[in-house]
Amino acid sequence: MTIPGKIGFIGLGIMGAPMAGHLHAAGYELHVYTRSRSKGDQLIGSGAVWHGNPASVAATCDVVITMVSTPQDVQQVWHGGLMDSARPDALLIDMTTSSPSLAQRLHDEGRAKGLRVLDAPVSGGQGGAKAATLAIMVGGDVVDYEAALPLLEKMGRKIVHCGRAGSGQRVKLTNQVLIASNVLGLAEGLAFARKGALDMKTVLSVIAESTGASTMLKAYGQKMVDGDWAAGFFVDHFIKDMTIALEEADHLGLDLTSLRNSLHRFRELQRRFGGTDGIQSIARLVG
Amino acid sequence: MTIPGKIGFIGLGIMGAPMAGHLHAAGYELHVYTRSRSKGDQLIGSGAVWHGNPASVAATCDVVITMVSTPQDVQQVWHGGLMDSARPDALLIDMTTSSPSLAQRLHDEGRAKGLRVLDAPVSGGQGGAKAATLAIMVGGDVVDYEAALPLLEKMGRKIVHCGRAGSGQRVKLTNQVLIASNVLGLAEGLAFARKGALDMKTVLSVIAESTGASTMLKAYGQKMVDGDWAAGFFVDHFIKDMTIALEEADHLGLDLTSLRNSLHRFRELQRRFGGTDGIQSIARLVG
Repeated sequence: MTIPGKIGFIGLGIMGAPMAGHLHAAGYELHVYTRSRSKGDQLIGSGAVWHGNPASVAATCDVVITMVSTPQDVQQVWHGGLMDSARPDALLIDMTTSSPSLAQRLHDEGRAKGLRVLDAPVSGGQGGAKAATLAIMVGGDVVDYEAALPLLEKMGRKIVHCGRAGSGQRVKLTNQVLIASNVLGLAEGLAFARKGALDMKTVLSVIAESTGASTMLKAYGQKMVDGDWAAGFFVDHFIKDMTIALEEADHLGLDLTSLRNSLHRFRELQRRFGGTDGIQSIARLVG
Repeated sequence: MTIPGKIGFIGLGIMGAPMAGHLHAAGYELHVYTRSRSKGDQLIGSGAVWHGNPASVAATCDVVITMVSTPQDVQQVWHGGLMDSARPDALLIDMTTSSPSLAQRLHDEGRAKGLRVLDAPVSGGQGGAKAATLAIMVGGDVVDYEAALPLLEKMGRKIVHCGRAGSGQRVKLTNQVLIASNVLGLAEGLAFARKGALDMKTVLSVIAESTGASTMLKAYGQKMVDGDWAAGFFVDHFIKDMTIALEEADHLGLDLTSLRNSLHRFRELQRRFGGTDGIQSIARLVG
């Protein structure tokens, strides 16, 4: 398959807007829909074509990418016009972090309709979306992955085919399961150190070279010490990811006690302080 | 203070024996005591002097190092002859991972007797002890730290003065609080991936460059996948460390839910499989 000129992009939030922008800047004809039209203003102003609903985007484009919020949103878009209106042999790519089971289902439904479906969630946050340095984890058929690659390379840097449909979501959620424990453990360790009246600069530098080191420590250790709660990764989004992972774990018959404890703590954080701070703000609950 | 020729070393287990060996090899006159005399055979054979109890070691040496198992062992040795028999102005260094509160108490008691006391727990395991590459976290007076440095440098590579008495223990335990969450989160993530029928090689390589990366992942990811439970760091020792940390956290008025959950899970692991496997064997409980 050659990459077509017409790309549809549904969902222009803090991630979707810059991602769609990179495709547009690369010269693709861009067709967009998003719930609040104002979020598309900038892209439309620079030449993207606005559509009133997902069905209209799908009827126009050979590739459609969705980047919405929750698995419920994915279902609403995909079952609310996207799949029914898609052109024969269209390539549909969901880049939302969503349910692996749903991704498998959509892939199979798509195949029955003669469509090609990939799940391709990302990692790297708003910064990675803007800089086009996202990691992209792709599930689905290899031939479709290869067809999508030139597009995905406009949005990310490390793009990996993880396996059959749903595997992109599974690898992404695996990562979220790890950070669920790592970020809470970090908050607990730093609270332990602070209450023990330690010099926090010394603590951070020693831990950074010890067995407790992690990417969470690198990203958030100093911010926790400084009380800097500005969001790179929103509490609300992380709770969504952990909820999906825990549901999927139940489905697989796994009892993930550390994930469950972290989700419980983050929900408490959300109740007390809202969900628009960064995930490092879990330190506010500890100590 | 100049470093004297006579060094006492109490506790010749899997860590203490190689550590004492490095001091002996560096030319110090070594005086040793350990509960099971046979553990000292090799050192005694190469010229170390055996003593029948800690008091006798203390009466002979200007520096005495202890490397035993638990805070209870530390108390037994320090209050069971070591402090009472120590020479005036002696430097006493506890390298056991032990309670920060106990370390502070021993320091203050020592000072009242005209003794100098440091806490200096290590990180790096048996491999680090053998290779003399341990990280050593030191609490106590700076002048005593500086006096001890030439000795500590024979046993380790990264030696940091962490602050007043007890601070070495506090920094060490801070690290253990982090790994308590990180290693269980790793086991949960890998179980989630495996049950999702993912290719584990792909998972490990993607996660290694993602936000879920950690030193625990580097050290134990592949071992968990392979079912390799051979010990670098024993379950028994880790449970001891987490127990001390949780007691200290209670003492500080901190509720560390993730640490508590990890300790609970590791105790379950110990009940089911014993405590002599490596901590990566927590993966056996998950999935």
